[in-house]
Amino acid sequence: MKHYDLVVIGAGPGGTPVAIEYAKLNKNKSILLIDGLGKLGGECLFQGCIPSKIIEASSHYISMLQQSKEFGIEIKDSHYQIIWEKIKNRKETILDKRNNAAKDILGGLENITFIQANASFSSKNSIKMTFENGEENITFSKAVIATGSHSFIPHYEGNGVNEIWTNSDFFAKMQLPQSLSIIGSGAIAVEFAMFLATLGVRINIFSRKSKVLLNLDSEASDYLTQKLQNNPNINLLLESHIKSVDFEDDNFTLHYMQKGEEKTLSSQQVLSAAGRVANIDSLALEVAGVKATNKGIEVDKHLQTSNKNIYANGDVALNFPKFAHTAQFGAHTIAQNLFLEHNIFSVDFDKNSWVLFSSPNVAMAGIDENEAKKRGIEVIVDKFEFATEAKSQIQSEDYGYLKFIVKKSSNQIIGISIMHQEAHSLASEAALIVSTGLKLKDLINSIHPHPTIGESYVMLAKKMMGDIMMKKLQKPAVKVLLNIERWL
Amino acid sequence: MKHYDLVVIGAGPGGTPVAIEYAKLNKNKSILLIDGLGKLGGECLFQGCIPSKIIEASSHYISMLQQSKEFGIEIKDSHYQIIWEKIKNRKETILDKRNNAAKDILGGLENITFIQANASFSSKNSIKMTFENGEENITFSKAVIATGSHSFIPHYEGNGVNEIWTNSDFFAKMQLPQSLSIIGSGAIAVEFAMFLATLGVRINIFSRKSKVLLNLDSEASDYLTQKLQNNPNINLLLESHIKSVDFEDDNFTLHYMQKGEEKTLSSQQVLSAAGRVANIDSLALEVAGVKATNKGIEVDKHLQTSNKNIYANGDVALNFPKFAHTAQFGAHTIAQNLFLEHNIFSVDFDKNSWVLFSSPNVAMAGIDENEAKKRGIEVIVDKFEFATEAKSQIQSEDYGYLKFIVKKSSNQIIGISIMHQEAHSLASEAALIVSTGLKLKDLINSIHPHPTIGESYVMLAKKMMGDIMMKKLQKPAVKVLLNIERWL
Repeated sequence: MKHYDLVVIGAGPGGTPVAIEYAKLNKNKSILLIDGLGKLGGECLFQGCIPSKIIEASSHYISMLQQSKEFGIEIKDSHYQIIWEKIKNRKETILDKRNNAAKDILGGLENITFIQANASFSSKNSIKMTFENGEENITFSKAVIATGSHSFIPHYEGNGVNEIWTNSDFFAKMQLPQSLSIIGSGAIAVEFAMFLATLGVRINIFSRKSKVLLNLDSEASDYLTQKLQNNPNINLLLESHIKSVDFEDDNFTLHYMQKGEEKTLSSQQVLSAAGRVANIDSLALEVAGVKATNKGIEVDKHLQTSNKNIYANGDVALNFPKFAHTAQFGAHTIAQNLFLEHNIFSVDFDKNSWVLFSSPNVAMAGIDENEAKKRGIEVIVDKFEFATEAKSQIQSEDYGYLKFIVKKSSNQIIGISIMHQEAHSLASEAALIVSTGLKLKDLINSIHPHPTIGESYVMLAKKMMGDIMMKKLQKPAVKVLLNIERWL
Repeated sequence: MKHYDLVVIGAGPGGTPVAIEYAKLNKNKSILLIDGLGKLGGECLFQGCIPSKIIEASSHYISMLQQSKEFGIEIKDSHYQIIWEKIKNRKETILDKRNNAAKDILGGLENITFIQANASFSSKNSIKMTFENGEENITFSKAVIATGSHSFIPHYEGNGVNEIWTNSDFFAKMQLPQSLSIIGSGAIAVEFAMFLATLGVRINIFSRKSKVLLNLDSEASDYLTQKLQNNPNINLLLESHIKSVDFEDDNFTLHYMQKGEEKTLSSQQVLSAAGRVANIDSLALEVAGVKATNKGIEVDKHLQTSNKNIYANGDVALNFPKFAHTAQFGAHTIAQNLFLEHNIFSVDFDKNSWVLFSSPNVAMAGIDENEAKKRGIEVIVDKFEFATEAKSQIQSEDYGYLKFIVKKSSNQIIGISIMHQEAHSLASEAALIVSTGLKLKDLINSIHPHPTIGESYVMLAKKMMGDIMMKKLQKPAVKVLLNIERWL
């Protein structure tokens, strides 16, 4: 039986980077990377963040077009046609480029073997690989499970249930329906709804809740709920419960309950974005002594499972934030600890960040106000409105806000939420502020360039520090205090 | 004679924020803000960064339009018309909004008096204000000079010299010429050339040097020189020396030398962007005991002049980087020191940053490689190409680079240069990295969201740290070392 020093199952953002980083640092160790599809990139590249943002980029052009008059650019006949074939090809080109770039990196590392196979554990230190024509058993010293998750289709009545698309189906087929019913009210549902509506698709959104995006800052979720309601191409069905999905003559009929009433709607397609399930069923985890619930594999802060030689990373791990970049961070953490042969580094999701590519974008970094309260951390919360910021005015994007959650005891910024048309541009600085534990004074003492939307960080820090100062000034002997603290 | 605790001369970004911040912190002190034009905002708001970016925003729409086909959006008749009147009105609206917002803030502070007057010192602690109908003398405890700078028109022969525009004339008149000759090859010259060429103006650029933008990272200045040369609306005249400028029948004729040959060119307008001169002539600085050269007022790191009760800030100060945001930082420094009655804070231009709104944008933060060499700092320099970055590929902006100048002894990032279509979005994080003294590990240990162009910061940090690691791995006993250093 062949032996590998490290086996990585899953070639997405939670797996491939572990294999690459470890292989680079350990030229004399053997690494096996196994993927069921035999492709590098995983859900994010082929069925998630990347293709969705490619379509979003095209829908962004339509929004720009509709705004050009305001900027003094009048197009003779601004009627436009969407060349879907072009968008489809563009998607393929970019995906190929990224897949090939990853292949080139792997190809340059002689100690990595990449195999297309389904993997399941055959003991605590061995794996059975199943191919189209046969199988093979291998042993390992260390293993990393990064098999990701898949979209969940709820159990409805009706003959249409098996025809419901997930994001994977949508990006595999790349067909633009005339009308689409979306089940769910989270990030995937809202992103799909917004960019497809701009591309002319009539959208129904079925949400069980009274608003969408419950995991966002509440001001942002209220605003986006309203935006969806005001979009003429979107029919937002709040507090609705689907009962059955029928499919006949290339058309879906959805029967649902809303506020006690039974109703019916039809659409050309149905997309489920109702939640995600960890890909663990075929792994035979119990054989390897790896504990898991039906929501994912149990891990500690080093991403180690109940089998100390096996790690789990990304969507497949329990309570792991389901983002490609968080999985990449986990991959780095595992690769380092394996190399150092000690669990020195750990993951800290309190410094996680993410962007919702809605219109406007929303971005979050660190923890939110509710979480701070839950933990008993005394915080100051304040926001800056982009209405007063120069670059946002120049770009006619002067709505939305930047919000800081600041620890009262130290003025450290522990949470940031942003709503802005280009929050994706602001998000990475937010991530850095939170992860490095910066304080208000660090922003105030920096020189941010003008005019950029990033200046908002300094403006909010100044505003909050100003209020803190004002309070201090009401107390006696304040100057001495200030002098010592240097405005901290 | 009336007495003020603080007098600020000049209501631009170097003056107004001192008055406001000091007034807020010192409710019982009297502040006088004097401005020659009686407007709040200075050169930046009325004749510089803001109006130029408003026109750039419109030219950006034209570039987008030309690119929409690539994104699968085909416009029926994509011929467009530039409604200059609309752009002009948009500019006025935004400028008014900003000017009024500043007025509102001043209006809310009862201890600030705002006066339109020309100011000159009448002694070491008094100022003569000259109005249209008369004058007034006042005394002060502390004063701040923030009178800015103005564009310089070189001494040429010919009757056209007095007709040459500066940026101030352009934004005051807001007329779009059919053809424009620009004198200079710095930031203002290149920004004007690029956005006006996109708006259809035929441009001649007269540069004395063999390329443009000599103060940029040399890779960026080479690229932008080429871009100007390839632009069909731009005629870049390198190593050219203007001899005379004649004006007749609403047309300029420029006689110039290029590579030993005498040549002639004509254009409808001429714009000088050949350099800037500090506004000090009418201040009677010698009366106040304030030392200055013809390039500006001498200041120390606290921005104090040779008269300890007088500070100078912004463009008017000698060797002060000529940016609105740097002046704003200086204003904060002065306001704090005045309030604390001690020079605790100082300016540090090593953490300055700025953006050139060319196409693509260029951004710089901290010090460049040459400066590091001059100071004898051993550095590692490396770059990340946006060609491999997901969001840049998605936006079809996958060219340009991010470059780090890293101190070899500590892995601290002391300089960053960026060339990217949206470098303005990346610039503020660069400013923060440099100003807070972050190291490569701080970026590696952060979780930047995917897919955003800001991820490039982490990718470059990982690449550079990887190379450092590889070198260390060639030495014995490396693991122990690594363990101790925790990858620093």
